[in-house]
Amino acid sequence: MTAETAASAGLAGFLEGIVTGRIRVVDLTMTLQPDFPTIVLPPEFGQSWPFRMEEISRYDHRGPFCYWNNFACGEHTGTHFDAPIHWISGKDLPQNATDTIPPEKFIAHACVIDCVDAAAGDPDYLLTIADVEAWEQRHGRIPPRSWLLMRTDWSRRDWTGYMNMAEDGAHTPGPHPDLIPWAVEERDIIGFGSEAVGTDAGQAQHFPVPYPCHYHAHGNNRFGLPSLTNLDKLPPQGAVLITPPLKIRDGSGSPTRVLALVEEG
Amino acid sequence: MTAETAASAGLAGFLEGIVTGRIRVVDLTMTLQPDFPTIVLPPEFGQSWPFRMEEISRYDHRGPFCYWNNFACGEHTGTHFDAPIHWISGKDLPQNATDTIPPEKFIAHACVIDCVDAAAGDPDYLLTIADVEAWEQRHGRIPPRSWLLMRTDWSRRDWTGYMNMAEDGAHTPGPHPDLIPWAVEERDIIGFGSEAVGTDAGQAQHFPVPYPCHYHAHGNNRFGLPSLTNLDKLPPQGAVLITPPLKIRDGSGSPTRVLALVEEG
Ligand SMILES: [Mn+2]
Ligand SMILES: [Mn+2]
Repeated sequence: MTAETAASAGLAGFLEGIVTGRIRVVDLTMTLQPDFPTIVLPPEFGQSWPFRMEEISRYDHRGPFCYWNNFACGEHTGTHFDAPIHWISGKDLPQNATDTIPPEKFIAHACVIDCVDAAAGDPDYLLTIADVEAWEQRHGRIPPRSWLLMRTDWSRRDWTGYMNMAEDGAHTPGPHPDLIPWAVEERDIIGFGSEAVGTDAGQAQHFPVPYPCHYHAHGNNRFGLPSLTNLDKLPPQGAVLITPPLKIRDGSGSPTRVLALVEEG
Repeated sequence: MTAETAASAGLAGFLEGIVTGRIRVVDLTMTLQPDFPTIVLPPEFGQSWPFRMEEISRYDHRGPFCYWNNFACGEHTGTHFDAPIHWISGKDLPQNATDTIPPEKFIAHACVIDCVDAAAGDPDYLLTIADVEAWEQRHGRIPPRSWLLMRTDWSRRDWTGYMNMAEDGAHTPGPHPDLIPWAVEERDIIGFGSEAVGTDAGQAQHFPVPYPCHYHAHGNNRFGLPSLTNLDKLPPQGAVLITPPLKIRDGSGSPTRVLALVEEG
């Protein structure tokens, strides 16, 4: 393949793949709606607004030609992007906010680890280095700059099961405290994504380093992508994720439309 | 090139192009911030909220580990996506809202018409069919399913100049009333985008069909993309736009991070 053919295959071929369906576009986003559950912190802390909509007009006296809404929410509502500035470990890093992260970082490869059975048996299931190494034996090494995605089918639960709150807090799966430092150092991941309401496990405030996924990922200028869905529609390797957050000035994250590109075999 | 090579060049080659910089990612998004001007309707109509942020915590007593914000705005705030359901002409079309539009439609080719000189001389400048045909003589025919983008450098203005309000309303450039029906029928565009606060010209409420861009584009299940910036960084043809709105249930549009992919020649 000459350089010229490669260049033409690149972007023109890419778009042709989208149009013909050779490249499938999979929506990894949960729908933003008023009943989407909001993460709740201990009462002494500041709280995220729930997602709320207010109709401005609907082809009526408030606006005869048009239908539109106002809305309000937290930056970390629904399927969303966590920027490094979100966590204290990432607060002084360069290009760490939604408006300053280089936009090419919003397009990256994905590795999907199937943890469905483990999470079904144990809502506090923690994804370990050994799990990922076993996955690599079957599917190949995680390439640099990949999203590490934890599939649990958690997004298929009803809202009560999704939040899975008990008296001692939430019980939802996430990465083992050792996983993210290893995945950053040894595999150079671009970020960690999951189907639960946050990237860290529900009990992660009790870990030796509280919220270790947030701490280590954001402290190393990597990203988070919680509340994903449709991870069952992705191959273990080879999908490309498009994850651009809203360009909020100095934003710590934002609800995001996450799309995956999957090449049909 | 064999089918296998083409397939591998498709998505793997695409990602390699992003990583190596052969495919440049250009951010076409204006920053969401509290001073971003809000479109104002006559007082008898419902109004859009301005963009507003409220800090939840910033590594302090409200949340020692993290920084995050709540925010509120209209669906049509900042650089945003107009869905067909936004307009009465598109209200009964299938898959016409932010949560139902097929996601592959959020990736499409762009044609950029340079109207900088014309708009500098006349803030009410209207892009005509003849203008686009003259552009096609130089840059080639608009391919089906392209965004038709009107570059005016309007996004470089200060907020007063950007809104350009007078006693008789806003004076900002947009498409001539004849343009969109022609562009849909004869060129099968996927949508129309511009740098001004709306896709229609500032004086478009006085046109024979009020707001003809909204009426004809959305009535034909096409999209809008106002408040773009950095159109000067795109070639006349060949860029690919990524335009996914938030997945708001029954949403008429949403603030959107718009990215363009440009292949270096
Ligand atoms: Mn978050
Ligand atoms: Mn709009």
